[in-house]
Amino acid sequence: MATITLESIGQVARVASQKMAHLSTTLKNQALSNIAQGLLDEEAAILSANAADCADAEAAGLSAAMVDRLMLNSQRLQAMAKDVRAVAALPDPVGEVIDMHTLPNGLIVGRRRVPLGVIGVIYESRPNVTVDISSLCLRSGNAVILRGGSEALRSNQALVKVIRRALGAAGAPEDSVQFVDNPQRELVSQMLEMREYIDLLVPRGGAQLIEFVARNATMPVVAGGVGVCHTFVDRAADVEKGVAVVNNAKVRRPTICNALDTLLVHVEIAPLFLPAIAREWGKAGVEMHCDRRALSLLEGVARREGADWKLKAARPEDFGFEFLALVAAVRVVDSLEEALEHIQRYGSGHSEAIITEDYSAAMRFLDEVDAAAVYVNASTQFTDGGQFGLGAEVGISTQKFHARGPMGLREMTSYKWIIMGNGHTRPL
Amino acid sequence: MATITLESIGQVARVASQKMAHLSTTLKNQALSNIAQGLLDEEAAILSANAADCADAEAAGLSAAMVDRLMLNSQRLQAMAKDVRAVAALPDPVGEVIDMHTLPNGLIVGRRRVPLGVIGVIYESRPNVTVDISSLCLRSGNAVILRGGSEALRSNQALVKVIRRALGAAGAPEDSVQFVDNPQRELVSQMLEMREYIDLLVPRGGAQLIEFVARNATMPVVAGGVGVCHTFVDRAADVEKGVAVVNNAKVRRPTICNALDTLLVHVEIAPLFLPAIAREWGKAGVEMHCDRRALSLLEGVARREGADWKLKAARPEDFGFEFLALVAAVRVVDSLEEALEHIQRYGSGHSEAIITEDYSAAMRFLDEVDAAAVYVNASTQFTDGGQFGLGAEVGISTQKFHARGPMGLREMTSYKWIIMGNGHTRPL
Repeated sequence: MATITLESIGQVARVASQKMAHLSTTLKNQALSNIAQGLLDEEAAILSANAADCADAEAAGLSAAMVDRLMLNSQRLQAMAKDVRAVAALPDPVGEVIDMHTLPNGLIVGRRRVPLGVIGVIYESRPNVTVDISSLCLRSGNAVILRGGSEALRSNQALVKVIRRALGAAGAPEDSVQFVDNPQRELVSQMLEMREYIDLLVPRGGAQLIEFVARNATMPVVAGGVGVCHTFVDRAADVEKGVAVVNNAKVRRPTICNALDTLLVHVEIAPLFLPAIAREWGKAGVEMHCDRRALSLLEGVARREGADWKLKAARPEDFGFEFLALVAAVRVVDSLEEALEHIQRYGSGHSEAIITEDYSAAMRFLDEVDAAAVYVNASTQFTDGGQFGLGAEVGISTQKFHARGPMGLREMTSYKWIIMGNGHTRPL
Repeated sequence: MATITLESIGQVARVASQKMAHLSTTLKNQALSNIAQGLLDEEAAILSANAADCADAEAAGLSAAMVDRLMLNSQRLQAMAKDVRAVAALPDPVGEVIDMHTLPNGLIVGRRRVPLGVIGVIYESRPNVTVDISSLCLRSGNAVILRGGSEALRSNQALVKVIRRALGAAGAPEDSVQFVDNPQRELVSQMLEMREYIDLLVPRGGAQLIEFVARNATMPVVAGGVGVCHTFVDRAADVEKGVAVVNNAKVRRPTICNALDTLLVHVEIAPLFLPAIAREWGKAGVEMHCDRRALSLLEGVARREGADWKLKAARPEDFGFEFLALVAAVRVVDSLEEALEHIQRYGSGHSEAIITEDYSAAMRFLDEVDAAAVYVNASTQFTDGGQFGLGAEVGISTQKFHARGPMGLREMTSYKWIIMGNGHTRPL
């Protein structure tokens, strides 16, 4: 029964995607405007569905943080509506023609940007993802099959109802937004088999979901979301800049994927830098899991200053770990080379930074670090589609294929070669 | 034992890929020049290895066409050397910086093009593929793991020896070109599991290999090679141009993936066009598998003209079939819409063409056909990296993800975001 349903969802999405590919920007923007208005007009229905989800989540013993991620209110709905309107303001990637030129034989050849087709998205509790992804898929001319978490089922159903009605009112196919409302886990495995109906699968969630999808999907996948991020404070760092950047990278929002996990400090600057950052992190309540040298240095300073920093000896598994909390691993290294080796070994290819005033060290770091985003003297928390000028993002890819780093509208497209001739034949 | 070997090949390739990413264009071009020279200098050794492969192939009863694909001679080696030198003349995609700009907060953000890392290629008999792919991977800064067909084993071993020596002499890591010389079929399955060591897998071969790889690979795949190509002769076609283009699309080289498989003809022009193309195809020996209307029309003309065309009634399976031979399916359609529907249903997303003088029909065809290459009034045989100005190609992708159509050097790369700040922190 479930198989038939999912298959029919795929078929319907495929048909809708063929219409989506040819909608004008004006019509797509009207649909986005309708969605934004619908979120405000249907506030009562959405919040009531969401309240039921939240009550169940609390009853099931979900953490306060999880319930907060799930929870909608009037303000959050207004923010969602604003984000939808922001998507309408972005340039439409569909129809852009790239590198069009005339060959010596007179053939005109170029590439025209087209939607990918049907995007499948598997995600967890936050209901705003339902609206974000739908808006981005609509704007880039794609149909979408949404598979949200069971804890947000009623919220997502209410949101999808608003979205589909808004599409229909603008003259866009309602069926371009499909929601899988069967909470059974087997449906994920079934989605992974639907190569014929899903052109791209985006898993958003923990490392386990992403690994499962990457190994079992039969269609292309853009995976991301796991960020084990390092900042290396070079011997030639400006300590004041370094403290500000490192502190921001950890403390601004510790629960996001671009937050600092491991701090690497050059041995020559460690006596100056480590106490300076420990003073800031002490105030913010950051727990520091230190290697032997960092620990002995910081314990000495803490004793002398009578400071109450949260210092612990690092265990091996602290390196390469994504804390998503006010915790950082700390290691003293002897050289830039040692920092580069550490990052290559433990990094997840998300965001990595160096703090230095040394030109050659900065250039070498930019050159050699293999990650989606590589920084000099800036906080890794900037890795974000909005910050990078993409306007919005479907996710942050930590793979190299198709899209790397924040994925915006353009990354939801492909291209086709178009060739205009006048009876051209190819010589032998 | 085989597992250990393949795993160690992967490890060695991964290490080499890290060096490859930072080689200068000058050094890579020196390596290419060495390869070209090595092919000429080592002619005796290569041709003797190849003669052994060809003898075994003949003894095993391979067709003359297959043995010809396998066979090398002095001329073919010279052509291969020339192709290698041509790759050196292409612009180097690595290091290109895309869209670099300064954000309002002063952060400088851009994307720098980088190699993908390790490319795995699974291919069949033609030994020149070994040299082509190695050259393209070298030039784009990637390491490569080659898995050629068992029938070309000794030829490939001899070629890889030349390539690796040429790399070493230029100061490039020899280990960046790895050859899997174990002919066991299980090795393909093992390669598909090597997600940690292979960043992109390119299967080159029949539909069965490609389907197997797409379903079972754990890493990204660019698949292609299967081309079910249509040309639609619209009611407003110029018959003379149409006959030249359609004839070229089928006859120039019938065994390649961009050759015409099905001819669709508008009912209003069929009485004029079908006899005209049948006269050409009659001379070339093309067998026409015709639908009812085309067959009755052509049989009538053949009778009146006393022509000896190879006419057959089409079976349903002729539509959507890749003939790779002097055979074409022929169908009369009532409208452009019917042609578009036919192509959507039966096409493989490779190359599709319309012959028309009607501007709106041409625009609609370009807009609506979903394929890697869409043509107006030109032969589908132009779908080729060299023809499109890419210089050379790793293959022709019929998927939408990452690369579509001919894949050149740029399609062997990814990018990383680079961000240069001056102590930038992100506000809350």
